[in-house]
Amino acid sequence: MIDIRPVLFVNGFLLLVLAAAMGIPAIVDLSAGDVDWKVFAVSSMVTAFSGLALIFGTRTRGRPSLSARQAFMLTTLAWVSTAAFAALPFAFSNLRLSPTDAVFEAMSGLTTTGATVIIGLDTAPRGILIWRALLNWLGGEGIIIMAVAILPLLRIGGMQVFRMETSDKTESIKPRITQVATAITLVYVVFTALAALAFWAAGMGRFDAVCHAMAAISTGGFSTSDAKLAHWNTAVQWVAIFAMMVGGSSFVLWTGPWRNGRPRILDDAQAHWYLMFIGTAAGVLALWQWAVNDMSLGIAVRHAAFNVVSTVTTTGFVSTDYGLWGGFAHVVFFILVFIGGCTGSTAGGVKIFRWELLFALAGIHLKRLLHPHGVFVIHYNQRPIAPSILDSVQGFVVMYFFTFALFALALSMVGVDFLTALSGSAAALANAGPGIGEVIGPFGSYRPLPDSAKWILSFEMMLGRLELFTVAVLFSRSYWRE
Amino acid sequence: MIDIRPVLFVNGFLLLVLAAAMGIPAIVDLSAGDVDWKVFAVSSMVTAFSGLALIFGTRTRGRPSLSARQAFMLTTLAWVSTAAFAALPFAFSNLRLSPTDAVFEAMSGLTTTGATVIIGLDTAPRGILIWRALLNWLGGEGIIIMAVAILPLLRIGGMQVFRMETSDKTESIKPRITQVATAITLVYVVFTALAALAFWAAGMGRFDAVCHAMAAISTGGFSTSDAKLAHWNTAVQWVAIFAMMVGGSSFVLWTGPWRNGRPRILDDAQAHWYLMFIGTAAGVLALWQWAVNDMSLGIAVRHAAFNVVSTVTTTGFVSTDYGLWGGFAHVVFFILVFIGGCTGSTAGGVKIFRWELLFALAGIHLKRLLHPHGVFVIHYNQRPIAPSILDSVQGFVVMYFFTFALFALALSMVGVDFLTALSGSAAALANAGPGIGEVIGPFGSYRPLPDSAKWILSFEMMLGRLELFTVAVLFSRSYWRE
Ligand SMILES: [K+]
Ligand SMILES: [K+]
Repeated sequence: MIDIRPVLFVNGFLLLVLAAAMGIPAIVDLSAGDVDWKVFAVSSMVTAFSGLALIFGTRTRGRPSLSARQAFMLTTLAWVSTAAFAALPFAFSNLRLSPTDAVFEAMSGLTTTGATVIIGLDTAPRGILIWRALLNWLGGEGIIIMAVAILPLLRIGGMQVFRMETSDKTESIKPRITQVATAITLVYVVFTALAALAFWAAGMGRFDAVCHAMAAISTGGFSTSDAKLAHWNTAVQWVAIFAMMVGGSSFVLWTGPWRNGRPRILDDAQAHWYLMFIGTAAGVLALWQWAVNDMSLGIAVRHAAFNVVSTVTTTGFVSTDYGLWGGFAHVVFFILVFIGGCTGSTAGGVKIFRWELLFALAGIHLKRLLHPHGVFVIHYNQRPIAPSILDSVQGFVVMYFFTFALFALALSMVGVDFLTALSGSAAALANAGPGIGEVIGPFGSYRPLPDSAKWILSFEMMLGRLELFTVAVLFSRSYWRE
Repeated sequence: MIDIRPVLFVNGFLLLVLAAAMGIPAIVDLSAGDVDWKVFAVSSMVTAFSGLALIFGTRTRGRPSLSARQAFMLTTLAWVSTAAFAALPFAFSNLRLSPTDAVFEAMSGLTTTGATVIIGLDTAPRGILIWRALLNWLGGEGIIIMAVAILPLLRIGGMQVFRMETSDKTESIKPRITQVATAITLVYVVFTALAALAFWAAGMGRFDAVCHAMAAISTGGFSTSDAKLAHWNTAVQWVAIFAMMVGGSSFVLWTGPWRNGRPRILDDAQAHWYLMFIGTAAGVLALWQWAVNDMSLGIAVRHAAFNVVSTVTTTGFVSTDYGLWGGFAHVVFFILVFIGGCTGSTAGGVKIFRWELLFALAGIHLKRLLHPHGVFVIHYNQRPIAPSILDSVQGFVVMYFFTFALFALALSMVGVDFLTALSGSAAALANAGPGIGEVIGPFGSYRPLPDSAKWILSFEMMLGRLELFTVAVLFSRSYWRE
């Protein structure tokens, strides 16, 4: 049997963080004179009490240390339990969301998916709006830490490539991880603050600026307007483009030590592909809109850049209804949602580094056909990549498409139409937010979907956020055997 | 430089076979009093002359033997050149297809895709109808021989698993392959004859029975009616179900030596999965149609079995408009088209054995997360599978989805709508035939598509038929270097 106590112990601390975070919307509502502050205060107390109960009920002597099995359970349980408690304010506030809707909204927030069931954001109480932004932001922080500290050790989908990054030095691994996590958190906070300032300088109100900064850096995509970023001016949209791009980059590479006086991200293979890819996709789409659909060049560039960046970084902000751009744009956006941002970012999807390795592998497959006995080694960031890592990466990508198909099937079984099932499954798995079509398209809403579909999507968001295998392993026989 | 002479030499023989085949529609038209017989006669002479020119222009002393490089070029060139000559009758007959349409129809026939640009099949001259059936049938034969004799040696997408099958004995490999190819051809002819008899016994006219037998065993799917198999009765449809299933099975396993007095196919892992998979998918869909859409059970079973078998075997026959079955059926059929039949069959798609290996790999990926130093070996048909083979399989599947996305993108760029681009790309790549939606759905036609889309699809059919890498390698730098 697995000793579940250390798992619950750490989970207790996460609930305490969540409870503390609930204080913020309580204060916001209180100062705005909204009675919802009581809902947040009570939710906070319930969450804090549960967290403390877990901590004191399961503490053991000595420093808790986690086995791989326990780490798998912890990551999954962390998202399930925080989503459950984070749903409380949605259910009991004046919005009166059903339990299903409340859990969907909370899971969508914490996984930085940003799919929403709330209509009427422009007039929603500020407490709820800041709570949604906070869920995005905390979820984004959680996912970066997980990607840097836990997934590489668990060897999920080739993430072991990034193990070395955190243990460059000869120090022992644990304090090094704490140090890196602290540095990343600092970077995360600074970028969010800069984004908020920039949004404000570009013309947003202070409250909206803070909410959108949190949603952009976390690539969560919750907005304070039903029209998302189409509600704001051109300058705000350009700020959002840069903020989302930062959110989709590897945060660890913004931390020290800098090499030759410049951040490590400038020399990173993944960052280069990320920029090249976004540049190419946005360029092609801008030209298309300009040449084929007669959009003026400036507007075409802005909207193409905005929505390409939003989709590749899986943020889900929208600057205009690209659903009206025709078949080519439809296919482009449908494909882009599978790409994903950089590893160690807040973005979802397959991730750029995996595509890089797959691309290199395809070349080797071709070479091997002609030179069956040749030895080919793939290098990534000047380091040779072991076959076992390539195997993990390929396994991940196949599993990704398999999961996509399985959940599309499940969605269609509960009565969701073809386009919504397909694009909804892709968007939930990539934690991207909007899908394609009438229902869940750029300016659509997940509200009209049946409850069963919302549970399916909530589960898929979590699966995608935790890189599939972290959750899937819990359902394997060998996990529970001995 | 590659010595292209042996390639052209073998190609010349293929053209002679094609020229001889053109004699059949010529005779059919002549006996029906249709002047089109002249078109076939002239086309046959042109093709025969070209074939002879190639043979005599490139013959060398001694037995021709092919290097891997030459084999890659031969397979691609074989489909390109035969499609070009096979298009002649379409362009010059009374149908007067445009060059684009003629090549599309010929390539669609020879790759056993069965997508058609001809409307009005029910009143079309018999010569054209038998020519289409013959293209399916010859293409099917070609692909089986290729899968048994060439692809395993070239190690395409893990096909090396099947190399041993042809060299069980201690004999030298070449006569063994000739022997196996002869046995397979015999089985192919016998099955086609049996299918024709069964179609005829079930109530089809003799001519239609022969055409449909050729189209079913080759999983080509060209029909003699615009309504495809919906034009005929229940008994005919059941015959088609079994004929298509035979077409999607590994033909080499029907040949000797039999073990313990039963065909080897009964003990084959791929055949088991194939049956189980078809049974499950058809069962679920039949229940769905019966319980959810109020179809009577007998009709639901027949239509579910028919269209599932037709899609999994990538035949493309249709018994009813399942486009009206709703979102769930849409998603099911969209996914099924990626599955594909057995290796060494006439079916396209990813193929059952690759899914089996991927499924086994997924299990191992999960186990490895918990036991990073464990050694896990995948067995297939009681034989251990080498890591390099698993690598090829994974590489193939990733490349498959990549190609699917790339061609969907290309189709949408030339003005094809989202659903047609996506399902058309999937159907062409799998050599399946019909797609989803208004245009190219179950009873739709490829005729309205723009010419550029037809060329894109023709190329994709060939790519899919030749298992991607056979063609892709010709576009790699290392193929042409040194
Ligand atoms: K998002
Ligand atoms: K077909």
